[in-house]
Amino acid sequence: MTSFPDLSLLVEPRNIALVGASSRQGSPGRQLFDNLVRHSRLAGSVFPVNPACAQIDELPCWPSVEALPDTVIDVAVVIVSARHVLSTLQQCAARRIPFAIVLSSGFAEVGEEGARLEEDIADLCRTSGLRVYGPNCPGLVNVRDRLGLCFSPAYKDDLHSGSIGLVTQGGGLGRNLLQGLSHGEGVGLWFSSGNETDLQAADFIAYLAQDPRTRVIALLMEGIKDGRRLVAALALAQRHKKPVVVLKVGRSQAGVQAAQSHTASVSGSAAINSAVFRQFGAIEVDDLDQLVAAASMLSRPAPAPGAGLCILSFSGGAAALAADAAGVAQVPMAMFRPATLDALRAELPSFATLGNPVDLTADVLRTPEVLARCLDIVCMDPGVGAVLFPIPMDYGQTTADMAQAVADAASRTDKLIIPAWLSRRLGPGFTILEERGLLPFASTTAAIDTLAKCFMRQASEPQRPQACASTHADAEPAPPSLTTMLSEASAKQLLQSEGFPVPLRRLAHSAEEAERFADVIGCPVAMKIVSAQILHKTEVGGVRLGIASAEQAAQAYRDIWASAGSKAPQAQLDGVLVEQMAPAGRPEVLIGVRRDPSYGHVITFGIGGVLVEVLKDVVHRLLPLTPEEARRMVREIRLFDILRGVRGQPAADLAALEELLCQISDFVLQHAETLDELEFNPVWVGAEGQGVRVLDALLGFRAGSIEATAL
Amino acid sequence: MTSFPDLSLLVEPRNIALVGASSRQGSPGRQLFDNLVRHSRLAGSVFPVNPACAQIDELPCWPSVEALPDTVIDVAVVIVSARHVLSTLQQCAARRIPFAIVLSSGFAEVGEEGARLEEDIADLCRTSGLRVYGPNCPGLVNVRDRLGLCFSPAYKDDLHSGSIGLVTQGGGLGRNLLQGLSHGEGVGLWFSSGNETDLQAADFIAYLAQDPRTRVIALLMEGIKDGRRLVAALALAQRHKKPVVVLKVGRSQAGVQAAQSHTASVSGSAAINSAVFRQFGAIEVDDLDQLVAAASMLSRPAPAPGAGLCILSFSGGAAALAADAAGVAQVPMAMFRPATLDALRAELPSFATLGNPVDLTADVLRTPEVLARCLDIVCMDPGVGAVLFPIPMDYGQTTADMAQAVADAASRTDKLIIPAWLSRRLGPGFTILEERGLLPFASTTAAIDTLAKCFMRQASEPQRPQACASTHADAEPAPPSLTTMLSEASAKQLLQSEGFPVPLRRLAHSAEEAERFADVIGCPVAMKIVSAQILHKTEVGGVRLGIASAEQAAQAYRDIWASAGSKAPQAQLDGVLVEQMAPAGRPEVLIGVRRDPSYGHVITFGIGGVLVEVLKDVVHRLLPLTPEEARRMVREIRLFDILRGVRGQPAADLAALEELLCQISDFVLQHAETLDELEFNPVWVGAEGQGVRVLDALLGFRAGSIEATAL
Repeated sequence: MTSFPDLSLLVEPRNIALVGASSRQGSPGRQLFDNLVRHSRLAGSVFPVNPACAQIDELPCWPSVEALPDTVIDVAVVIVSARHVLSTLQQCAARRIPFAIVLSSGFAEVGEEGARLEEDIADLCRTSGLRVYGPNCPGLVNVRDRLGLCFSPAYKDDLHSGSIGLVTQGGGLGRNLLQGLSHGEGVGLWFSSGNETDLQAADFIAYLAQDPRTRVIALLMEGIKDGRRLVAALALAQRHKKPVVVLKVGRSQAGVQAAQSHTASVSGSAAINSAVFRQFGAIEVDDLDQLVAAASMLSRPAPAPGAGLCILSFSGGAAALAADAAGVAQVPMAMFRPATLDALRAELPSFATLGNPVDLTADVLRTPEVLARCLDIVCMDPGVGAVLFPIPMDYGQTTADMAQAVADAASRTDKLIIPAWLSRRLGPGFTILEERGLLPFASTTAAIDTLAKCFMRQASEPQRPQACASTHADAEPAPPSLTTMLSEASAKQLLQSEGFPVPLRRLAHSAEEAERFADVIGCPVAMKIVSAQILHKTEVGGVRLGIASAEQAAQAYRDIWASAGSKAPQAQLDGVLVEQMAPAGRPEVLIGVRRDPSYGHVITFGIGGVLVEVLKDVVHRLLPLTPEEARRMVREIRLFDILRGVRGQPAADLAALEELLCQISDFVLQHAETLDELEFNPVWVGAEGQGVRVLDALLGFRAGSIEATAL
Repeated sequence: MTSFPDLSLLVEPRNIALVGASSRQGSPGRQLFDNLVRHSRLAGSVFPVNPACAQIDELPCWPSVEALPDTVIDVAVVIVSARHVLSTLQQCAARRIPFAIVLSSGFAEVGEEGARLEEDIADLCRTSGLRVYGPNCPGLVNVRDRLGLCFSPAYKDDLHSGSIGLVTQGGGLGRNLLQGLSHGEGVGLWFSSGNETDLQAADFIAYLAQDPRTRVIALLMEGIKDGRRLVAALALAQRHKKPVVVLKVGRSQAGVQAAQSHTASVSGSAAINSAVFRQFGAIEVDDLDQLVAAASMLSRPAPAPGAGLCILSFSGGAAALAADAAGVAQVPMAMFRPATLDALRAELPSFATLGNPVDLTADVLRTPEVLARCLDIVCMDPGVGAVLFPIPMDYGQTTADMAQAVADAASRTDKLIIPAWLSRRLGPGFTILEERGLLPFASTTAAIDTLAKCFMRQASEPQRPQACASTHADAEPAPPSLTTMLSEASAKQLLQSEGFPVPLRRLAHSAEEAERFADVIGCPVAMKIVSAQILHKTEVGGVRLGIASAEQAAQAYRDIWASAGSKAPQAQLDGVLVEQMAPAGRPEVLIGVRRDPSYGHVITFGIGGVLVEVLKDVVHRLLPLTPEEARRMVREIRLFDILRGVRGQPAADLAALEELLCQISDFVLQHAETLDELEFNPVWVGAEGQGVRVLDALLGFRAGSIEATAL
């Protein structure tokens, strides 16, 4: 089990030595001195060290660490030039000072010589027990106790404290996060670990995990020095139930370190980092604004399990956009209890929409007190965990009054009130929300994505693409009432007469016929039940592939007939198709056409078989298709590499496939009035020069049309 | 070919009738009157109509449209109650007024009766030639000519004009967009089409497509009344080279209208809308802020083809984040010419990073003139199409000076200068950028995603997931120098002794042996070349599956030996494995383990075979695995439905699969010091109760270890 150092004396020191303190205005040594002596609250004393000064302001200055008076010093802050750092640290170790913060730069970041200096420091730490923070770091800021062990002139401007613990490596972006969290819940401790010669980000995470004044840990990671320690620290945070949110810089460098094995080539270090964060419960975000928003949201009480989102707006459009974003992010919408609906009904005009989203109507612009009461009403509903209030436009004072009502309502409830200020015009209402700590989001998408990441998603459930949510209704889909579906045999007969590539086949009406036809066509054959009422033949045991002999064909006939008869007793069975097999090992695709009520005929293309169900990897086009469009759509699917040929497989006959798409387009155009539906699935795709074959086909024509009755 | 009406008189009318104008303060009729008479610039005269008034302010008022004086009226704006609208429009038609804008509500949106009123209006339009805009709409705003045919009190506040044409259906969110575009390029015309009884969004798009004063078309669509007309209008915009950006509300309702066929169930109307937008060149965005940002960016000159992005920053962290976002979005980075590097070198301190991203260092905070010159330098490089300047924190006046320098530089160049203001603290610098029309982004991700959508991606290229970009190096990956790879035969021998489920097999050294072993094992068999130097056997013709007889096995031996010998002449061939075949038709998975330099052993799991190459659908975990983690990782892949069983397929033996994962975890732990690499691919997964089988295995041990030498 990894152990972590106790950093209490580093974080809350009494006496502090300032090695390299200076009286020269504008120098980092002066700024450090001012931050500590002028702008901090000290528990003990400050001991400036600088051989060139006798005193700085009212404080006596000491020539060296060795020369310091005989008192207990908890932390030495070091800002001398790089070449003097090691000797300074040696003196610190000799004095048994437990911690040194090295702000100086000029180490590994500038080259070999600097890296060697760091090795010497690391050796000193190992042998002496001194713990070093840095070097090349902006320092440590204990905001909550107001202690600035840093030289940033901005230190004194960012002292809004709170329960968020922040760990960064470089310094610049940490300032961004402090500015972002300067309203609402603030940052209590900010560690910025610099080159991590000794103490690492993991040590600070572990400290924050065990620190009773920290509730949320926010990380901005550039490199990961020791993955195992990081994992141990994240696990510790998990055990202490401290949420961790992390932004990892360097995600797009994935796979740059060439990987040796096949497994490695699909891993990539960014993917592994993300997997680790996920495995150990850290929430990964993609940008600074998301890090601020998530840290802020996580510092508030979590919604009760099972509670959903309520969307409240005075703009129907904004409410619809927010509902869209919730649908995409799979954030559950709250179901109101009847009392909530009754209470809303009493407040709102008759034309308001009382479902969820609630459209308060623009009337509420004139009556912020109604808005306030409606917020109270929905917050009292136990089914509501969070309330999103999008504000799509700024109307000056009117919107300011509204913002005031939202902020007041937020202060009366434990529920998450999430305002989204959607206009670029940042009127006084925006300032009110910001200053009251509600950190309004700039879009409903951002608000809902943050909510989804922080709270409202089932962490232990597999995250699958949103499109999968609506997957199959297992029941047989009913054909539209006015469409006649042709049986496979009839469809293929029609397609053959139109010049489509369909396999050699015969329709058998008895086991004897099946046996004879199998012989004529040549084994192996495929056999399939034929019935206009059975769209998915596999599911009724109506398909047998790879039948190797005429004798087996006879038996297959009997099996198929019995199985389909028992599993689809209502279907009229027309026979069993005996059909030439396409050579195995080639990809299969799906091509479908349906009549969209608004656009007319739309063609769909994708890799066929089971993958279409699972991946939804399909592309669409309106008909008619140009050859160029056919070419593009084939290349647009995610799985195109399957057709292009991977791992030594020959490339598919793309020309034949594109021609088939165009042929379908022409066919549909020719039957535009009557064709309702077409599905070729699977279409076998041979290697270059081998063509394509329509192995199964469904055609649906308008009932009563010539095509529907002729066959 | 769809034809569209000429809307010139609607957009730029001379004389206008205001039916329902009112003198009562606060009423919509009054507001409409004020917008037109007080806050508009009129080309002709306004004729108020209201039987209850004799005059409004200084203008005489007429009792009815019929009673209006005998002059040419181009547009009637109607704001009477719904039940009087039809008769008003009949009078307009009788007077040969070509256009009526109906602001009144109370139509289809309130129920059946209202819908019937709309049908009557539609009939009137068809028979009379009158064209109606609305009803239930907020009106038409011709910002560029300052003509407000609308009743919004906010009209007079949003008169910042420009070349963006805006089409919305509802009104509220249109106001959001006007506020968003109130700096920089503004909106010249805003159509909001309401219930679209007659004129539709498509008509306005078509007008804007042909309007010489419009350069960009922004759409906010709620419903699509007539898909074919929309397509025709989008095609017209494409022909006139007007970029179109669209936000479609209602994306998450995809698939709600139950679909009849299999094809339909993977289509969904939202997917079709997106496909149409894409097919006809419209750029789809997901939220309001993106719509504003894209419209604004598209109004600026497009970067030259092939030009890339330059990232310029004074914060290394912000530059790295921006580079990450560019990598993820596949935005190409500019390559500087040597003169650019020389010129930058002359401006910047020696420790600045001169590559792209350029890190100007924090020194530039004190010298905004250096920033200005660096911006000029990169803009002059023909390889640079756009410059992103992220500002991660606000330092008050210092940052304001910087913003001023950025805005000044932007005014000197045609290149896209894209500032991103990343801090929540919106100091004076933010205001400068906003007011100078540079609309700073709130995150580098947002900035780069917008750039990718608008300009910097190959529109005609297939959009495949980013992970695919780095797909296989076709060459045989070299094993790491200190790892010894076991041959398949040796690996399986070891695995068998450790209790892993491997198939029955024998290693043949001659065609005769192959024949004998095939007989012993029982056909069909698989045969595979065995060589420690050949990791991907298929690629050298070293694999034969489904060998049906002992005689064929002998021939297969000869074929495999010849093919591998000629395709991998450097490899030492140890024999040909003759192996029991796993029953066909079952899914195959991949399980791999590699030693991550930072985290140690990482296990990877996914669906195997060709899909792993194409989809990268894999999940990772650090080892060791708990049974619960094994269970989760199996369920986390996107293709999990393949294992769960779709379309009547039996479910896979998940228990056996999870047990195998745990067994691997134990095995790796046991050999933690020496095992560098493990890959089981494919692993055959039987139906429930049938277990799993490791069909192919690679093991790599540290060179010189017992495992590496014992076999």
